Amino acid sequence: MASGSFTSRHLAVVGLGLMGGSLALALRERADTIMGVDLDGEARAYALEMGMVDAATDDLQKGVAEADIVILCAPVRAIQAMVERRIGSYLRSNTLLLDIGSTKHDICEAMGRLPVGIQAVGGHPMTGKENPGIRYSDAALYRGRPFVLCPTRRTTPAARERALALVDALGAVPFEMEAERHDHLVAAISHLPYILSATLVATVAQQGQADPTVWELAAGGFRDMSRLASQDVQMMGDILSTNTQAVATLLALFRVQLAMLEAMLVSRDDQKVAEFLKPAREARLNWIQKYENGYKK
Amino acid sequence: MASGSFTSRHLAVVGLGLMGGSLALALRERADTIMGVDLDGEARAYALEMGMVDAATDDLQKGVAEADIVILCAPVRAIQAMVERRIGSYLRSNTLLLDIGSTKHDICEAMGRLPVGIQAVGGHPMTGKENPGIRYSDAALYRGRPFVLCPTRRTTPAARERALALVDALGAVPFEMEAERHDHLVAAISHLPYILSATLVATVAQQGQADPTVWELAAGGFRDMSRLASQDVQMMGDILSTNTQAVATLLALFRVQLAMLEAMLVSRDDQKVAEFLKPAREARLNWIQKYENGYKK
Repeated sequence: MASGSFTSRHLAVVGLGLMGGSLALALRERADTIMGVDLDGEARAYALEMGMVDAATDDLQKGVAEADIVILCAPVRAIQAMVERRIGSYLRSNTLLLDIGSTKHDICEAMGRLPVGIQAVGGHPMTGKENPGIRYSDAALYRGRPFVLCPTRRTTPAARERALALVDALGAVPFEMEAERHDHLVAAISHLPYILSATLVATVAQQGQADPTVWELAAGGFRDMSRLASQDVQMMGDILSTNTQAVATLLALFRVQLAMLEAMLVSRDDQKVAEFLKPAREARLNWIQKYENGYKK
Repeated sequence: MASGSFTSRHLAVVGLGLMGGSLALALRERADTIMGVDLDGEARAYALEMGMVDAATDDLQKGVAEADIVILCAPVRAIQAMVERRIGSYLRSNTLLLDIGSTKHDICEAMGRLPVGIQAVGGHPMTGKENPGIRYSDAALYRGRPFVLCPTRRTTPAARERALALVDALGAVPFEMEAERHDHLVAAISHLPYILSATLVATVAQQGQADPTVWELAAGGFRDMSRLASQDVQMMGDILSTNTQAVATLLALFRVQLAMLEAMLVSRDDQKVAEFLKPAREARLNWIQKYENGYKK
């Protein structure tokens, strides 16, 4: 994909949060006009004031009516609701519809039921920041990061090319795969970690009821392991509830590994414990080296 | 405890790694002489070269013979072996023996069997750095951090006062408690998190065998949750194997919480899922606020 091939006459960004705001910033020079759509007046005012968008509205129909490209940057269930209930009748034929929802199966299914003529591709950029909100927007948020693209029944070869050009314009690295495969992979690296983090905090909180000193002694290890638990509950609940089957599969695999390690510990088989822990250590060291050298550039 | 009351004529630091080196730096002005003991010639040479110690030896007996205070800064099992097998006959009567091992029950038991006259207190500072080794030593490593002190059968009131004065000299915050209570608390905030981290990486590695793309998509959430898995396997194996019962108890509590959350997810009870995740989020937010405002100053 040649860099510089992405352009848009009327780009609509639906959802002016960290992800949508960063998209608008990154694509500012590639689009003749950018329309921001959000129910939140403060977010719209901020986007306008900072010149991130040329116009803003809280009316989805108005916001996307003229667009040749629409990017849905909302929580998973909100995206799904827009795709299922409303947006199909608002879009012009040949418009490219892309989303950035964290689970892809349900959204891509819904996209596949859109009117013929709409070009729809599921998307999921593997990036973010601890602080959400448009004020933390960053044109470099997507740069060097994986951006998954999932085909739908409304993905024509031309739609695929336009989506790839958009990913390229963001400086992101495209990964094309089926929605099911995506959902299974993110269950392992995003959803299972979140569940473990929240459940760890719940367990420590239970300890804290009997002995509150547990909170005072907690240090850097707990800090890292509990960070994901502080994510938005509504957002994460939506993500988990739209990926239940893959999450349940990963939990089953995790439980097997945990039971193995515990059996080794309880039977005081130090050799076996080391044989379990060593490959995990090596896998993490290998990954972090690639992650820091490869993606963060 | 009045600041400035801690002094030592001959301080011996056994184990010249990050923790021992940082102790030597922090107590440099409080001790007339500091002796470093380590089997590793490079660590000894570095400590001497940097003026962290006045003398260094690989001979435990020589190193501690003249000491009025000895601090054992080695992995748990190495500390236990020294206390059980050798150090009792090397120490002068009235010497204060302190350690910084990560589990306290076995070490405090062993300390309780030392010759009468030796003053022994179990210790565990809740601090550290990702990079071990004496070269990362930092006089401020203990400052503002919790330092647990556990009584043994060889802890006289005078020994307790001297240990508290030492903790004060480090700028650390003393927490006095029985060894069993300590081991139970750290099982929740240190050992369980490590086990979850290693088991998460093992689970992702299993996925990676079927679909290596999982490593390429992994991002910041996985990064945090996998960090502990990269810790030294021997060190962590020793810690777990000297705290098996508390770890098994915490794993049982964790499994109950995990099963509850999974049942809510699988039965698609979004309300219950939110009721589980919300208190975990709030507990983490409360903790991080206190941790960053209180301890990190």
